[in-house]
Amino acid sequence: MGLVVQKYGGSSVADAEGIKRVAKRIVEAKKNGNQVVVVVSAMGDTTDELIDLAQEVSPIPSGREFDMLLTAGERISMALLAMAIKNLGHEAQSFTGSQAGVITDSVHNKARIIDVTPGRIKASLDEGNIAIVAGFQGVSQDKKDITTLGRGGSDTTAVALAAALNADVCEIYTDVDGVFTADPRVVKKARKIDWISFEDMLELASSGSKVLLHRCVEYARRYNIPIHVRSSFSGLQGTWVSNEPQGDRPMEQAIISGVAHDTSEAKVTVVGVPDKPGEAARIFRAIADSEVNIDMVVQNVSAASTGLTDISFTLPKAEGRKAVAALEKTRAAVGFDSLRYDDQIAKISLVGAGMKTNPGVTAAFFEALSNAGVNIELISTSEIRISVVTRADDVNEAVRAVHSAFGLDSETDEAVVYGGTGR
Amino acid sequence: MGLVVQKYGGSSVADAEGIKRVAKRIVEAKKNGNQVVVVVSAMGDTTDELIDLAQEVSPIPSGREFDMLLTAGERISMALLAMAIKNLGHEAQSFTGSQAGVITDSVHNKARIIDVTPGRIKASLDEGNIAIVAGFQGVSQDKKDITTLGRGGSDTTAVALAAALNADVCEIYTDVDGVFTADPRVVKKARKIDWISFEDMLELASSGSKVLLHRCVEYARRYNIPIHVRSSFSGLQGTWVSNEPQGDRPMEQAIISGVAHDTSEAKVTVVGVPDKPGEAARIFRAIADSEVNIDMVVQNVSAASTGLTDISFTLPKAEGRKAVAALEKTRAAVGFDSLRYDDQIAKISLVGAGMKTNPGVTAAFFEALSNAGVNIELISTSEIRISVVTRADDVNEAVRAVHSAFGLDSETDEAVVYGGTGR
Repeated sequence: MGLVVQKYGGSSVADAEGIKRVAKRIVEAKKNGNQVVVVVSAMGDTTDELIDLAQEVSPIPSGREFDMLLTAGERISMALLAMAIKNLGHEAQSFTGSQAGVITDSVHNKARIIDVTPGRIKASLDEGNIAIVAGFQGVSQDKKDITTLGRGGSDTTAVALAAALNADVCEIYTDVDGVFTADPRVVKKARKIDWISFEDMLELASSGSKVLLHRCVEYARRYNIPIHVRSSFSGLQGTWVSNEPQGDRPMEQAIISGVAHDTSEAKVTVVGVPDKPGEAARIFRAIADSEVNIDMVVQNVSAASTGLTDISFTLPKAEGRKAVAALEKTRAAVGFDSLRYDDQIAKISLVGAGMKTNPGVTAAFFEALSNAGVNIELISTSEIRISVVTRADDVNEAVRAVHSAFGLDSETDEAVVYGGTGR
Repeated sequence: MGLVVQKYGGSSVADAEGIKRVAKRIVEAKKNGNQVVVVVSAMGDTTDELIDLAQEVSPIPSGREFDMLLTAGERISMALLAMAIKNLGHEAQSFTGSQAGVITDSVHNKARIIDVTPGRIKASLDEGNIAIVAGFQGVSQDKKDITTLGRGGSDTTAVALAAALNADVCEIYTDVDGVFTADPRVVKKARKIDWISFEDMLELASSGSKVLLHRCVEYARRYNIPIHVRSSFSGLQGTWVSNEPQGDRPMEQAIISGVAHDTSEAKVTVVGVPDKPGEAARIFRAIADSEVNIDMVVQNVSAASTGLTDISFTLPKAEGRKAVAALEKTRAAVGFDSLRYDDQIAKISLVGAGMKTNPGVTAAFFEALSNAGVNIELISTSEIRISVVTRADDVNEAVRAVHSAFGLDSETDEAVVYGGTGR
C-alpha cells in the first residue's frame, strides 16, 4: 500500500499498442493496492513533428506560442492513456500540467518549477482514480501562460509531483532495464546497477550518462524521493536511486559505480595567458556574458621562463562558435597569444563514492588508459569522480578498458535496449 | 475602426501554407485599424486522426478524456497561427477556450456555453495584440474540466466571443464564397446571397444548408451580432446575416431566400393508429425517451370508416434503428397496425420571409415539382418555410426545378468551392 508516481517516456507510448501495454502496467500497480499517479510524455515523434510544423510557419517561433504548441503532444498521449485504462475497467482522469498544479517561472521553453499544488490530483486519487498528468509542462505563476520545462522535463515533473504528494517512489520507465555501469552500446558486458546513491547518479548524469538527467536527480535528492529506473518493456527490477539501498535486496555500495563518457563536447584552449590576477576572471566573464555553459576547466602552473600559462575548458560543441567569438573580443584586453578549438575530443569519467577511501583508484584509472594506448589530454577530478579528455577516436576502447580494469564486467552480455531512443 | 472577430475553419488552416495565407488576411484586418480576435479550428484532418487514435485504444472513449484529446487539435493550429502572425511583424497571443473564458456546462462532447468572461482577451487586445482563440472548446463551470462544444462548435465560439466583446462583426471564413440560394454542387446557377435575415438563415440551416449551423445563427440572433460568411481563399464580399441589411450595398429582402435540401433523414410511418386522444403522445414519448431527435411530423385526418389514422415523421437515418425498436415496444399499448421505415427519401425546403405576404408561393412550389415529375410524399410548413418529402432519387431534379421557378438562377455559374469540405 502506498503512493506511486510512474513516468513513461515517448518511446513507451509511441503508438496505440504501446499505450495499451503501458495501461496494463499501470493497472497492475493499482491492483497491487497503490494509489497511482502517471506522468506521460508526448507519443514517439510527436514533439519533433510539431517543431517541424513551427519551422514551416516561422523561422524563429516565439517562446510563449512554441510552448502552447508543444504541450499539445502530452495532451494527446495523456487522454489516450486515460481512455486505455478505462477500457481495462479502471477509473482514470488526465490533467494538464496547469491542472495538476505545476507552477513555474516565466522562462518559456526551459521553465523551472517553483511550486507544485496538486489539489486536483489528490482529490482524484481520493475518489479512487488513477491520475494521468502531462509531463514537461506547467503554468507560469505571474502570467498564467503555459510553459515547458525543457530537456528531461517529464522526468522532472514526475519527481516534483512525487515530492509534492509525498510518494513512496517515483518510477521512471524507459527503454532500457536501468542504469548501467557503462553505456551498453559501447560495453557489451556492462552491468545493470541495482542501487546507486543520489551523489554517484548526479556525477554519472553530468558525465554523459543519459538515462536520467542531472536536474531530475538533483530534485529527487533535495526532497529525498527514491527513483526506480526500469524498463516499460521487460518488467524487470531496474535501478534504485536513493539515499539508502532499497528494494528487495539491500546491498553494499560498490567502490566504483560506473564509467560514463561524453562525446558532445569540444575543448577550447586559451594559449599564452599572462599569469597574473584577474586574467582568468576576464576570460570566464566573457564566456558567461555570451551565455555559454562550460564544463571542465583546467589551468596548470605557468612556465617560470615566460610568466605565461594556458587555460583550457570544455563546452557543448553547439556553443563553440559563440564562445570563440566572445573570447576573440577579449584578446587585446587579456593579452593572450592564440585560441585553439578542438571538437574531436571525448570525456571519460570514473564515478564512485568509494574512491574517497581508496587511494589507488586514480592510479589504476590512468594505468588502464595507458595499457589501452590512450593518451590523456586533460584531467579534472571531484571528490567522487575522475574525468579525462582523450581523442574522440579512442573513446570506445578507453571506456571498455577502464570498465574491465575496475572489475565491472558482467559474466554475460546482459544489456538490452527495447524501444526507440528514449524520450 | 472596430472590433472584428474572425473564424477560420479546418480547411482554411489545413497546412503551413494555409496558416500563412490566413495570417496575412488577419494582419490585413489589423492594418485596417481594427482590434482583431481570431477563432480557429483544428488543422484539416487533425480531429479525425485523433478520433482514429482514440478508437484504437478504446472502443468507447470516455467523454472527459475524449474532449481532452480533441482539444489538442486547436491548440496546435492556434499556436502555429500566432507564430505565423508574429513572423509578419505583428504581435499575437493564443488562448485556449479556458483561458479565453469560454465557460460551459459539463456535458462532454456537446457542451453548451453558459458564459463568456473574456478578461484575458480584452487585456491582450488593449496591449495591441491580435488574440487567437481555440474554437470548439471551453471549460466546465463546476468541475473545471475541458469540454468540447460538438458540431459547429468553432462557429459558436466565434459568435459567443463576438457577443461578449461587443464586436462589430463576426466574420466566418470558410471554403465557399458565402451562403447560396441552393447547394452549388447541385444547382450550377445558384446565386450568392448578399444579405439574409437571421430568421431565413435559421430556416435554411435547419433545412439542410450546411454553411452555418442553426446553433451559431441562433446565438448571433439572440445577441444581435452580424455575421459575415465569406471565403478565406477568394477575399470577396460574402453573405451578411443580420437583422438589417449591412455592408456597402443595402438591399431589399428577397421574397425567397433559397432552396435547401437534406438527404440525411429517413421517414417512419406508424400505420393504423386509433384516432383518439393520447395515442400520438404515447408514440412520441417513446421516441423522446430513446433520445431520438425528430424533424417533421405529419398526421392527416383519419378515415371515417375505420377510425384509424397514420402518423409519419422524419429523423436522422443514424437514429432510425433506435426509433423503430422503441416504437415496436409500444405496439401493444398503442394498438397500431404496422411500422414502415423508409430511408430513400429527401427533404426539399423553400425558405423566405416574403412568403408570408405572397399567397401564391405554395402553389408555385408544388407546380414546379409537378412539372418536373416529382411526387410529394409529405408536406410540412412554417410561417416562412415550406418543406416536402420526395424520393431521394428525385432530389437534384426537384431542387433545380424549384430554384429556376422562383427566379433564383443567376446569369452565370458563379459558385466556386475552394478548399476541402470545411467543418
